[in-house]
Amino acid sequence: MTCRPTSPAERAALAMMLEVAAGPKPGNVDRCHDYPDTRLEHFLASVLFSLPALARAERGEGGIGDLIYDAVESASCHSGGNTHFGAFLLLVPLIFGKDIEGAKEAVSHTTVEDAVRFYEAFALTQVRMLPSDELDVNDPGTLEEIRRRGMTLHDIMAHSAGRDMVAAEWVEGFPLTREAADYLHIQGPGPDAIPHTFLLLLASHLDTFIVKKHGMEVAREVRKKAAEAHIGIRDVKELDKELLDRGINPGSIADITIAGIYTALAEGWRWE
Amino acid sequence: MTCRPTSPAERAALAMMLEVAAGPKPGNVDRCHDYPDTRLEHFLASVLFSLPALARAERGEGGIGDLIYDAVESASCHSGGNTHFGAFLLLVPLIFGKDIEGAKEAVSHTTVEDAVRFYEAFALTQVRMLPSDELDVNDPGTLEEIRRRGMTLHDIMAHSAGRDMVAAEWVEGFPLTREAADYLHIQGPGPDAIPHTFLLLLASHLDTFIVKKHGMEVAREVRKKAAEAHIGIRDVKELDKELLDRGINPGSIADITIAGIYTALAEGWRWE
Repeated sequence: MTCRPTSPAERAALAMMLEVAAGPKPGNVDRCHDYPDTRLEHFLASVLFSLPALARAERGEGGIGDLIYDAVESASCHSGGNTHFGAFLLLVPLIFGKDIEGAKEAVSHTTVEDAVRFYEAFALTQVRMLPSDELDVNDPGTLEEIRRRGMTLHDIMAHSAGRDMVAAEWVEGFPLTREAADYLHIQGPGPDAIPHTFLLLLASHLDTFIVKKHGMEVAREVRKKAAEAHIGIRDVKELDKELLDRGINPGSIADITIAGIYTALAEGWRWE
Repeated sequence: MTCRPTSPAERAALAMMLEVAAGPKPGNVDRCHDYPDTRLEHFLASVLFSLPALARAERGEGGIGDLIYDAVESASCHSGGNTHFGAFLLLVPLIFGKDIEGAKEAVSHTTVEDAVRFYEAFALTQVRMLPSDELDVNDPGTLEEIRRRGMTLHDIMAHSAGRDMVAAEWVEGFPLTREAADYLHIQGPGPDAIPHTFLLLLASHLDTFIVKKHGMEVAREVRKKAAEAHIGIRDVKELDKELLDRGINPGSIADITIAGIYTALAEGWRWE
């Protein structure tokens, strides 16, 4: 059978679907585990609802900030809370620019208007910010301050990069996205590649979403336990259960895994 | 948050995603159960790949037969075998006609060309036909015979309705689709509505896909056991495990469940 090639927006949607369907991924929603208010179906619906916005990103219709806003707003039409905010932050530039090189170029040209639209998208979600953050999304003065300082969206990400690994991807040229894609290529096709990639990332990097929500000590503990699971001295399913029970979800590693799947798919990695 | 209304094609995609994500559904692929060669990811990819064809059906661009062909061909771009053939047979007229009344109208106007395109779609899949079927898809003379007899796609369905509950939906005005939607409305929102609807249908109708693959006796046994699970004297998870172990998958009831979800969503049923 001759199959038409998938478009960048479809690849992004497939990446999000494959990531949430893959398991076990310690602490996160997967095919066999929900959080009470955020279930597998919310993630799947989020993919479906965001597709027109991702197609718009593919056609380059608008600035990066507005395209992120469109994806976040479209995807939020369910009661499951934040599902793919961090993923869109990576996927929109990747779709817009087609690949990592193009995404680096795209993020380097963002504007103050992109920063404003990003903050407006942020306000739609309940994504956690550090309480001490001087550019707090909940502070109505923030948008004014961004305009006053002339901060672009890239500047905003640089401002957050030290404590947010998704923001750091923007500033450092998507190194963990590259790492995730490389892991997938090494592992080849099949249903274990994504859970293994997720575990490898979790074993080698502190998840900044966990840091924000539970503090540095818990993030370090999770990284160490993931490393133990990776080398086989800890049961990955038990670690999954423990993190789910404690409400510790490595959301940023999941976002980067999605960006890695998108990149690997574009480079010919076969998912099945 | 103001959400744009979902289009019929999006509702169909959401229906397919919600159906495969829901569980337990005794014997079928669900979020926690794969078949060795057909996994959850294959169903999800099938939804994504078929979306442009479903959007074409929504715009009414082409005949029902050609639109079914397009959906089946697009969705088959993975190695997981048949995933949504029967579902497309119901969804394409429902999308084309917007609702059950429109679908009844649409199927009543099908042509010989629709029948030919349907057979060409059939040939793309490994969907089982009765060996004794005189209009066997594997017989190269069949298309000629269809043209010679001047059979429309509706005629083909009437020809198969006695032994195929999906074909019977076309001929009888989608009564089980209506029944499935009614069950969903009665049960209201939440993650249990779809598994309950599936079980109710399985408890009250013989699945003709099981009849074709395993014979009438096995189909009757499954119906009876589903009825026992429905009234609580048999464990539904154990029945699920038994059917999966024996390779008995009620594929046609799943197709009808999808058509019921599509219909219920259009009528305002809330899935979450």
